[in-house]
Amino acid sequence: MAGSGHLKLLRPAAFYMFAPLRPAGGRAAVKATFCTTVPPPSISRYPVPPKKDLPEDIAAVMEEVEAKGGFLPNVFKALSHRPAEFRTFFAYYNELMNKETGGLTKADRELIVVATSMHNQCLYCVVSHSALHRIYSKKPTLADQVAVNYQNAELSPRELAMLDFALAVCRSDTITDQHFLSLEEVGFDREDAWDIGAIAAFFALSNRMAHITDMRPNVEFYTLGRVARPKGDGGSK
Amino acid sequence: MAGSGHLKLLRPAAFYMFAPLRPAGGRAAVKATFCTTVPPPSISRYPVPPKKDLPEDIAAVMEEVEAKGGFLPNVFKALSHRPAEFRTFFAYYNELMNKETGGLTKADRELIVVATSMHNQCLYCVVSHSALHRIYSKKPTLADQVAVNYQNAELSPRELAMLDFALAVCRSDTITDQHFLSLEEVGFDREDAWDIGAIAAFFALSNRMAHITDMRPNVEFYTLGRVARPKGDGGSK
Amino acid sequence: MAGSGHLKLLRPAAFYMFAPLRPAGGRAAVKATFCTTVPPPSISRYPVPPKKDLPEDIAAVMEEVEAKGGFLPNVFKALSHRPAEFRTFFAYYNELMNKETGGLTKADRELIVVATSMHNQCLYCVVSHSALHRIYSKKPTLADQVAVNYQNAELSPRELAMLDFALAVCRSDTITDQHFLSLEEVGFDREDAWDIGAIAAFFALSNRMAHITDMRPNVEFYTLGRVARPKGDGGSK
Amino acid sequence: MAGSGHLKLLRPAAFYMFAPLRPAGGRAAVKATFCTTVPPPSISRYPVPPKKDLPEDIAAVMEEVEAKGGFLPNVFKALSHRPAEFRTFFAYYNELMNKETGGLTKADRELIVVATSMHNQCLYCVVSHSALHRIYSKKPTLADQVAVNYQNAELSPRELAMLDFALAVCRSDTITDQHFLSLEEVGFDREDAWDIGAIAAFFALSNRMAHITDMRPNVEFYTLGRVARPKGDGGSK
Amino acid sequence: MAGSGHLKLLRPAAFYMFAPLRPAGGRAAVKATFCTTVPPPSISRYPVPPKKDLPEDIAAVMEEVEAKGGFLPNVFKALSHRPAEFRTFFAYYNELMNKETGGLTKADRELIVVATSMHNQCLYCVVSHSALHRIYSKKPTLADQVAVNYQNAELSPRELAMLDFALAVCRSDTITDQHFLSLEEVGFDREDAWDIGAIAAFFALSNRMAHITDMRPNVEFYTLGRVARPKGDGGSK
Amino acid sequence: MAGSGHLKLLRPAAFYMFAPLRPAGGRAAVKATFCTTVPPPSISRYPVPPKKDLPEDIAAVMEEVEAKGGFLPNVFKALSHRPAEFRTFFAYYNELMNKETGGLTKADRELIVVATSMHNQCLYCVVSHSALHRIYSKKPTLADQVAVNYQNAELSPRELAMLDFALAVCRSDTITDQHFLSLEEVGFDREDAWDIGAIAAFFALSNRMAHITDMRPNVEFYTLGRVARPKGDGGSK
Repeated sequence: MAGSGHLKLLRPAAFYMFAPLRPAGGRAAVKATFCTTVPPPSISRYPVPPKKDLPEDIAAVMEEVEAKGGFLPNVFKALSHRPAEFRTFFAYYNELMNKETGGLTKADRELIVVATSMHNQCLYCVVSHSALHRIYSKKPTLADQVAVNYQNAELSPRELAMLDFALAVCRSDTITDQHFLSLEEVGFDREDAWDIGAIAAFFALSNRMAHITDMRPNVEFYTLGRVARPKGDGGSK
Repeated sequence: MAGSGHLKLLRPAAFYMFAPLRPAGGRAAVKATFCTTVPPPSISRYPVPPKKDLPEDIAAVMEEVEAKGGFLPNVFKALSHRPAEFRTFFAYYNELMNKETGGLTKADRELIVVATSMHNQCLYCVVSHSALHRIYSKKPTLADQVAVNYQNAELSPRELAMLDFALAVCRSDTITDQHFLSLEEVGFDREDAWDIGAIAAFFALSNRMAHITDMRPNVEFYTLGRVARPKGDGGSK
Repeated sequence: MAGSGHLKLLRPAAFYMFAPLRPAGGRAAVKATFCTTVPPPSISRYPVPPKKDLPEDIAAVMEEVEAKGGFLPNVFKALSHRPAEFRTFFAYYNELMNKETGGLTKADRELIVVATSMHNQCLYCVVSHSALHRIYSKKPTLADQVAVNYQNAELSPRELAMLDFALAVCRSDTITDQHFLSLEEVGFDREDAWDIGAIAAFFALSNRMAHITDMRPNVEFYTLGRVARPKGDGGSK
Repeated sequence: MAGSGHLKLLRPAAFYMFAPLRPAGGRAAVKATFCTTVPPPSISRYPVPPKKDLPEDIAAVMEEVEAKGGFLPNVFKALSHRPAEFRTFFAYYNELMNKETGGLTKADRELIVVATSMHNQCLYCVVSHSALHRIYSKKPTLADQVAVNYQNAELSPRELAMLDFALAVCRSDTITDQHFLSLEEVGFDREDAWDIGAIAAFFALSNRMAHITDMRPNVEFYTLGRVARPKGDGGSK
Repeated sequence: MAGSGHLKLLRPAAFYMFAPLRPAGGRAAVKATFCTTVPPPSISRYPVPPKKDLPEDIAAVMEEVEAKGGFLPNVFKALSHRPAEFRTFFAYYNELMNKETGGLTKADRELIVVATSMHNQCLYCVVSHSALHRIYSKKPTLADQVAVNYQNAELSPRELAMLDFALAVCRSDTITDQHFLSLEEVGFDREDAWDIGAIAAFFALSNRMAHITDMRPNVEFYTLGRVARPKGDGGSK
Repeated sequence: MAGSGHLKLLRPAAFYMFAPLRPAGGRAAVKATFCTTVPPPSISRYPVPPKKDLPEDIAAVMEEVEAKGGFLPNVFKALSHRPAEFRTFFAYYNELMNKETGGLTKADRELIVVATSMHNQCLYCVVSHSALHRIYSKKPTLADQVAVNYQNAELSPRELAMLDFALAVCRSDTITDQHFLSLEEVGFDREDAWDIGAIAAFFALSNRMAHITDMRPNVEFYTLGRVARPKGDGGSK
């Protein structure tokens, strides 16, 4: 039988291929090891000032952010090396990312950051804003899809047009009336276009600051918003 | 005081910024919602034959893989549309990825796949082989780092040289003696070079088949190997 | 004589070639015409608010800038469409471009803007910051050289290394220790590197805002700092 | 008041920002310095033969050109290193650039040179032909706009189509019927297409000869045609 | 007469220009020299095992191929360094290239290989599959045209659409429904699309294996199928 | 036996694979068909003037070239559409390609044309100058190798450095002293550098004229210099 020749090739291979997915002893053994993985302590290639040396307003912001979020994102630490730039960076950031007006949701804004930061190969921004997108959108896989290839991610036509425009800005393409028409076709007006473009423009800055400082994402960002855990945290799933 | 002007800019913004990380009610509430996210049913833009119509040898391989791994990776379903190509694809795959000889670990092989598949913007291969890398390497964040930018990932010089060579092959660069010397400097011999290059070459094929078929990763791959679970989980699943 | 054949080809052509440089009547006639060229009125594709509708602080800044510089650069008008972003943009701008500390001169800072904005094909920033460079550096041709091709402009090794780094940041290259070493070789320390990189990063943002708004340079910028005028000009203007 | 915080950021900065535009003492002081800027003596990295050693026909052409234009463009000096190539270069040049027939004006021809030479980052051709364009077109800013980014320069649809075709030829794109149709839509016939394409092709050669010789533009070219000067040359403006 | 100047330039040059095409005494003298050109002995940068050391099945395949084709293509020798990969490579190859079903002719398949292998600058595959295309298609110049530039080769609209799709796969473009529609317009169905894409994907692998091994084409491939020889040639050569 | 499974995959495939290389009836049958291949009549997308309408000097050149070479290369016909440009084109061409001085052989010059014209995807120049290279060099395969990928062609270090420089000029790279040093290391002086660069520059023009006119190579060029013919062919030389 012709098939028998093929099976000789495939059977043992298949055995190796997914064996690790179920090691003898169950997954628990694997997990225990993961717990001991030490996150790399590096945050930036520039010195991070100790809290006591920071200007009062910056220290206060950091405390507030950490209290609300559970940990302090490394971007705050890395940029505190230059307090004056820290202030203008976060003032600009908040103006663009935390607006409650206009046609963009918070998840939309994060998706723009993921797509454009990936174009710029910015580790910090892709990892941290993918986490924020998962949390805002409650879609645990879309940010990963957009990071790999937004062109075949599971996007609505509106989201696709939004990212097409964001990427045009990200690449510093010459923006023409046609770009605005493509946005209008899916319901974005000119103010939304400014918002999309300004976010892409701001992260053009942010991604490059991350490259200069070799900014490293907090280990928490890699998993935030990915998996549901048992409600009582001791459940069986 | 100069600082008071800045704080006006920053305080409210910081409030919005990370609020979602800790919604009222704690994280459990968020997670509960994630559980209801329905994975998209699409696997391939080509028809996937029902199991009963598959050749016996292919059906047997699928059963074995699913039994061992806990689920059947969609690449098996997508390529079963062409049984003869299925056989040669997996025979080739196993020859390169499941070898026990030579200088490459299984984690090394997966890392090559992640880096080169990202270059080719292949959703299926980046997501699925990042999962396999996390499992083999027990490093839950390195594959994500390599996917975004292998040049500043936390790699050993040996891993960096390995990926430099793999990317050269991936881009179809003209391979010269200098490439082999760079590998030798970190301990890889010519047979290892073949292995690294052949994996990059095979996934040049695999990534393109995934693009042709619009192959979608199983939802399990996005989270596999990311998080440790409580030791007493019992592992029944 | 062989030459006679060639001369037939060349003589009349040479006649046409530079004739326009000296039209009958001398250059004055040409110049008179230039005076009537009407500058295009467009400033931005977004509405520019009338002064009376602007927030008080922004109107005050505009008045001050116009009083000092002789005209109001269009970037102030274009960005006043979004007062909150106007404030953070210029606060950030001033922090980076108007510092009196560190190893960069004002001319250095402008040269970084010219080189990186050219890479991004940003009309507003190339034209306006070339003018500022001519004024600060008192070199009337260097900015034009850098705009066309900084690699063969008449730069010192220090300036060349500075622009190499700025362009690496501009392209969102992964920044490595080697980049910092190249800067150190010509006397820049790590704080200078941050300054160079942060300027390149800020204009990555700025160039893209100019593309989104189709921002047009004031006609004054094209000629500022290009030509010396007679000493006894008296400066009445 | 919220604004007061912002003003603290902006006021002093604005002071620095445009201060140089009006140094104490007025512009005259600045200009005086510009007059002393010594143009770099370098013309080419190859030897430029002294006039007495040149073939008679070439020396005669140079004299004629200098007499008509007021100075001898460096391309004549640089290429005189190879008299036979000098003859064919300028014969070809004149055939394409000094024609009085067909649909292209002299300003059109120069604009093609500016746009394509910028693509090739050719300092000599961008600077010298921008000057010629300013003189022929009497538009003092259009060449600079085209040099930075012809896609958002203030061009007529006819000029834009002309430069689109010139750039396609410049990049060595495969020219198709569609290219000719796009030209026909704005009124160019096939002979005009040849003219546009041949100019782009000739400057593909010329730009590369400038790169080989590191040809430097005469300092006069940077300012020619930019500013109107008082008719009596002693006026007050 | 104006023309005489030109003739001085042209006559002697024309003499040199094509003199070699017809040396005094005819072509025979030249040809005799060609016969002594020794083909370079190199086949691969990896060792090629002697026939006696090869597994029985691989040696048998080689004998059969050589017997049928008149010489053994070097790809068989180069890949025999790894017998297991040799088996899966040729099994896959045959599945895609030697099918008798579907809408692609053998010449179509070879043309896809030529176009995509040229994109990847693969000497072995361009030279060997150009030969196969000449033989299958009986068109002695089309493969050369496609190798230089498939966009202006003498292709039917069907062939052009086929190569457009193959190149999209070759470049690892994201494949969309539009790609399939373009194929349908010229008569290819979805199974043909898979065939075209799978060939492009397989040669993405094959080209890279050729780069890794520096695989050299047999000298026979350069001329196979190019020229007709006299019917009564009798085979003395 | 494991091998039997593999043989099932390979045997029949090998049968199909090279069958066409030896059709029943021997090669003569194939060749007879090739003889009937009609060369495409198209030469240029612009009109080619009939000989009687050509200027006397151009007609004379054409006759001379055809008499010496055995056929008239299509470039003469295509460019005769513009007699004045025809004259300067061939005057320039001859100056660069038919020199007897300096360090470049005629074969070297043709190799530069092949490599750079391939970069520009110019069908006419690659095919015709590959033929001239085969004739001058008496190496029947090197031009094909260089066309596909000069980086792994069988070149001497001198030839490789020559083509590296030619390609730098071809791409319009900024040429630096380092480029000249690399040439000096293999024995080329500055005059040779000019020759290499000027040929690359001239064919930057020539390739683009071929694209504009869609110039087609004479069918003779595809095979010239490829094959040796029987010694007794009649030639005495």
